[in-house]
This record gives sequence, C-alpha cells and structure tokens, in this order.
Amino acid sequence: MSDERPIGVFDSGVGGLTVVAALKRRLPRESVLYLGDTARLPYGTKSPLTVERYSRRNVDFLASRGVKAVVVACNTASALGLAGLEEPVPVLGVIEPGARRAAEISRGCVGVLATESTIASDAYGIALRAARSDLRVVSQPCPLFVPLIEEGWYDDTVTAEVARRYLQPLIEQRVDTVILGCTHYPLLADLLAGLLGSEVQLVDSAGAVAERLHQDLESSGALASDSAVEDHYCVTDAGSRFRRIAADFLGDPDLSLELVEVG
Amino acid sequence: MSDERPIGVFDSGVGGLTVVAALKRRLPRESVLYLGDTARLPYGTKSPLTVERYSRRNVDFLASRGVKAVVVACNTASALGLAGLEEPVPVLGVIEPGARRAAEISRGCVGVLATESTIASDAYGIALRAARSDLRVVSQPCPLFVPLIEEGWYDDTVTAEVARRYLQPLIEQRVDTVILGCTHYPLLADLLAGLLGSEVQLVDSAGAVAERLHQDLESSGALASDSAVEDHYCVTDAGSRFRRIAADFLGDPDLSLELVEVG
Repeated sequence: MSDERPIGVFDSGVGGLTVVAALKRRLPRESVLYLGDTARLPYGTKSPLTVERYSRRNVDFLASRGVKAVVVACNTASALGLAGLEEPVPVLGVIEPGARRAAEISRGCVGVLATESTIASDAYGIALRAARSDLRVVSQPCPLFVPLIEEGWYDDTVTAEVARRYLQPLIEQRVDTVILGCTHYPLLADLLAGLLGSEVQLVDSAGAVAERLHQDLESSGALASDSAVEDHYCVTDAGSRFRRIAADFLGDPDLSLELVEVG
Repeated sequence: MSDERPIGVFDSGVGGLTVVAALKRRLPRESVLYLGDTARLPYGTKSPLTVERYSRRNVDFLASRGVKAVVVACNTASALGLAGLEEPVPVLGVIEPGARRAAEISRGCVGVLATESTIASDAYGIALRAARSDLRVVSQPCPLFVPLIEEGWYDDTVTAEVARRYLQPLIEQRVDTVILGCTHYPLLADLLAGLLGSEVQLVDSAGAVAERLHQDLESSGALASDSAVEDHYCVTDAGSRFRRIAADFLGDPDLSLELVEVG
C-alpha cells in the first residue's frame, strides 16, 4: 500500500520552512505542497477567531489541491486554529508532538518561548501537563524575535540583549528544557543555547511533528513509495521579502513560488 | 454650507490613531469613522498588489458607511495603495502633504524613515523631488521600529541601539530634516530627536494631512457645522492587543470598538 499524494503544510509565512526541512529529513520520499499565508502574516499577534478563520481556509485550499494530510507548521495556528476545524483530510499540529517530546526528556521544569497568541492560549502548558501532571511550566511571549530574525540579526548584540530579557524568568525558575514554540526560533537556537547554558535542552517541535507524521502515515499505509518527489510552494503575497527570507530558511535562493488567493 | 458626514480614516492597525489625534486638533468639529485593518496588519512588509487590494476594500467599506472623505493614515497604503483606486469619495494620503512640508522647511537634505514597502516604493523621494528638485533624499527602512513600539519599549536601551543603527546613514549624509514616514514613529520622536540633535527638524505627516484636509473641506464647503461630534472605531480583528496599544496612542483605555469584516 502507498499513497503518492503530497503532504500539505501551511504556515502564516516563511517560518514553516523549518518544518518542511524536518519533514524532508524524516520522510525523504514524500512530496510537499506548502502554503505560506504571507498576505496576512503574522498570526502571532491576532485573535483566536481570526486565526481560526484563516486556518480553516488554508486547510480547505490544501485539501482542494489533493493533499493526503495537512501539517499545521505555525505554532499559533496549531494552538488556536484547530478547535473548530471540520477536517476534510487528517490535520496535525506542532504543539502536541512538541510538548510530548519535552515532557519525555524534562527533569521537571519546562520553559516555553512563543508568540503572544500562542502563550495566551496556554496550548503548550495544557499539552505538557496532560502528558506529565508533575511538570512546572514557565511561559514567555517573545514578540520581537520574529522581526529580529526577519531582519537577519541572528548573531547580534541587540538580539542577544532582547533574548537576555525574555529568558530572565526562565533562568530564575531554573528550567531544564525549553520549547522553541515558533517556527522562526530555531534560527536563534545557538544564541539561546549560549545564554541558557549546556544543561538546558532545546526542543524544536518540527522534528517531533515529522516523527509523528511518519508513524501516522506508516500505520495507515499511506507512505509514498519510491516515486519522484515533487515539491511546490504557494504564497498569498509574493514579494522580494519572502524570497530573501526563504533563502535563509531553506538555503535555496531559486525557490519557485506560485501566487494564490485564499479566501 | 456644511456637511455633517464623518471623515473616514483607515490604517493597517492602530498607528493611524496618531493621525486621528492630529485631525481632532485641527478639525475639532468633525466626526471620525476609523477603520483599523488589524486582521491583516502589517502592510509595511507586503507587496504593492496586496496593499492595493486591501486599500481598495477599506475605501469601499468607509464609503458604504457614508463618509464624506477618506484619509489614508497608513504611509505604506498611501505610498502603494492609491494608484489604481477608483474613488467613490475624495481620498487623501499622507505622503504628499508630509513631503511638501519637509520640502518647505529643509535646508537641502531630507531623511526619510519608513517601512520596507514605503521605502521600496520611493514615494517620499518622488514627492520631495517633485516639490523641490534640488533636494537630496536619504531613505532608511526601519522594520524593527513598529514591533519595538508595540512592545512598549519607547524609552529603552535596545530601541536606542536599533535607532542608532538606522540613523547612521542619515547622520553621515548630514540631513537637516527627517520625515517620520510611518504612523507609529511619532511615539519615538523624543528618542530620535535626541540622537539626531537639535538642528535636525522632525516632520510628522499627520499634522500636514490634517492641514490639507481642512483646506479641501473649507474650499468645497464641506466642513461640519457645530453639530455633535460622534467618533466610531472599527477593527477587523479585535484582540486585547489592539486595546492595549490603542490606549498608548490615544490615551483612552475605554475605546469602544466594532468588529467588522472587510472583504
């Protein structure tokens, strides 16, 4: 049994490309259809109602293009956007796989770094405590990380100072594991690891969701066979900005993009 | 002759409230109908096509609510979004009035601080040179200013360091006048003035557009008479975030907001 249809991935913008990279590593035979809702990004500062509306339209768009499953790469959409979804295809968010992995490796205190909306939803806190009721959770919204990353200031004194402020409560509470709860944050992994120290483990939800998807596809006999891999990237707003940032995320400056209208 | 219909004002979000404040000072008898497109903000990193599409829908929405004129408070929308507009009511952007004021007072070299999209359009440069062909123009995109302001870090060492980097080319080129080409930036006026020095004049387009609108309404006999002023605020995404930031802009924590859907 095999299923050659592509895996759909959506994100508010380019950040989901870190999830695509993780999928490619774990599932190299699968094709990916990516949708970046760049016309309406960011989701991380918007209300649950709006994020849910956009997420529903993104799932419908990907389903209409014939994907076999949808990965919600955007943490905010995973946290807020799935509740009311009637799902035309299986939909998998990043929160629960990421929280489960953190719960497995933590020694008792987990920090969560994410957007304002993700933190306000407490989606990671709820998933962490569901996995292990003894865990302490320290949550910190980091609204400046995405703009700093999109400015390209990864290794920078300003970014380091901002990170120092955001990490202060996590360090005071002696977290031992930190979830990078936004698709952009893996690009700050080195800087954050340096500030947190070598005893603190970083968890990136992208790897965890790729592992979960592999299990799901395998158990339902829906893995792709050895056919040709064809990836395709759609965006709702295709500016030079997307292209520049995408090159940082994927290392491919010649990405071919289709401009689409979604809802 | 008088016209009691409200003035429509739209912006991508809360920043346009600085323009409302300027209108209120110059035209205290006029009512304002404000539309903040908070579901799709920011405009400043998006493509001309997308910004134009959103701007058209915003004008149509305000026209359908019976405004007598529309002020495009958002600099990016003023720069990119007016070209193709068929205008059901008179539409006035902030770029040309702001550029004209700067051209009047400059001693020869004008700096422009704005979003990436506004700078890429060169709308201020074109308007400045049209007003005075001898002007030198130094343009600088400042993508981190809006997120820093929305974080509330007005008087802050991080914001000062970011501003120092952005202002460096303007200082090297010895600008004598600087346009604050984004509705958020007046909240950094003190910090920027401190870094630029007392000989550099700051121009805020909000005051300039209020003056222009006053002239237009007066000459067409469309000023409001002494009737009751009624302001009304609409947003496309009403989260607690909007309310918190709006309080910083208007000093009114009890703003009543109507949630609307626009296109």
